[in-house]
Amino acid sequence: MSTTNKKAVVLSSGGIDSTTAMAIAKSEGYTIYSLSFRYGQRHSVEIESARKVAKAMDAAEHLILDLDLGKIGGSALTANIDVPKHDSTEELAAGEIPLTYVPARNTIFLSHGLAWAEVLKAGVIFIGVTAVDYSGYPDCRPEYINAYEKMANLATRAGVTGETRLKIRTPLMKLSKGEIIRRGIDLGVDYSLTLSCYDPDQKGRSCGKCDSCLHRKKGFKEAGITDPTVYV
Amino acid sequence: MSTTNKKAVVLSSGGIDSTTAMAIAKSEGYTIYSLSFRYGQRHSVEIESARKVAKAMDAAEHLILDLDLGKIGGSALTANIDVPKHDSTEELAAGEIPLTYVPARNTIFLSHGLAWAEVLKAGVIFIGVTAVDYSGYPDCRPEYINAYEKMANLATRAGVTGETRLKIRTPLMKLSKGEIIRRGIDLGVDYSLTLSCYDPDQKGRSCGKCDSCLHRKKGFKEAGITDPTVYV
Repeated sequence: MSTTNKKAVVLSSGGIDSTTAMAIAKSEGYTIYSLSFRYGQRHSVEIESARKVAKAMDAAEHLILDLDLGKIGGSALTANIDVPKHDSTEELAAGEIPLTYVPARNTIFLSHGLAWAEVLKAGVIFIGVTAVDYSGYPDCRPEYINAYEKMANLATRAGVTGETRLKIRTPLMKLSKGEIIRRGIDLGVDYSLTLSCYDPDQKGRSCGKCDSCLHRKKGFKEAGITDPTVYV
Repeated sequence: MSTTNKKAVVLSSGGIDSTTAMAIAKSEGYTIYSLSFRYGQRHSVEIESARKVAKAMDAAEHLILDLDLGKIGGSALTANIDVPKHDSTEELAAGEIPLTYVPARNTIFLSHGLAWAEVLKAGVIFIGVTAVDYSGYPDCRPEYINAYEKMANLATRAGVTGETRLKIRTPLMKLSKGEIIRRGIDLGVDYSLTLSCYDPDQKGRSCGKCDSCLHRKKGFKEAGITDPTVYV
């Protein structure tokens, strides 16, 4: 990466993973272009967290795009299906794709990131996916990210003119939730700004029982750090 | 393709290419799920053409999604940049990517198609791209489509569970505009329903001078068929 092009588009949900990915991008000297989506998710209050995070990270810009995924449906996050709740992390289904999976969500997110990166002439997109403590979503795996990067480099001007190659960076891919949080704390991340819950209440308090809350709790426990989240 | 899954998502702009691709899908026995986008294009009247086409083709559904590409910009079609006009097809720039290129547009379109295909359990997406009489857009080339298909099959449930593989079909890839029109006429397409112009007037009449109008005129001329388009 040349120093003449240190712009990075960072996909930001306002959660732990994307916030840590953003902190890593910042620590490497990138100018941050934060990208968030309102996609009809029931937890759209996460956008407020993403705003606070972008501000705390001195993002050059925080672009919030509206997506029409509600009309496509197929997920407990965008359709009228209850978000599954559990009493303990032992109940997180292993190897199954849960109801909260949103069809092609990361592909749609990355594709908007790709468009913005091309306009900004940014050479990198950061995405906070992890294949360790994750929800079993197919679009979080390294083989998917690699295939996306290959496609992306054929999709844009760069694929024709041989300009800057786009890199999709996934610095959390091999980290557990606890390791992600420890990494973020080392980089000075204030996790009280972040929100993980799929089904927060009207006041923005986390439910404490959805997949995402359970992964978050487990992470703080593993990291040996007090969880600053306000639960119901 | 088994006969138990003959659903096809067809990306439809209401123009000649996507309409012909839809006619081909229909002729192969697919049930048509037409997908169009309002993305801030100045020629959003094309959506009306897409509606007429979906009706004429007996589509099972015509989903119209709103995209927020205007905020990303970077194109004469979505930003405040004039659409280039020409007096003859000789002026169409060869080998250059024109101002009307919308960054990552086909990637964003296909990604929504991918999401919908997953929800519908459709095994095929048809897209009317062509690498012959085209505008030099990088996301119309076969190497791009092949890379997209590989990525798509890792992005969704199918990539994990080994369910139906998704196929991206590009039946027009090697056809000239004239050949596309002849193919469509053979299949009974009524091209008076379609609109190609990037910059139509308030009454929906085509400008006759943008890249897309010139390709359309050239196509009808080559096909030896009277152009039913109403030009300004």
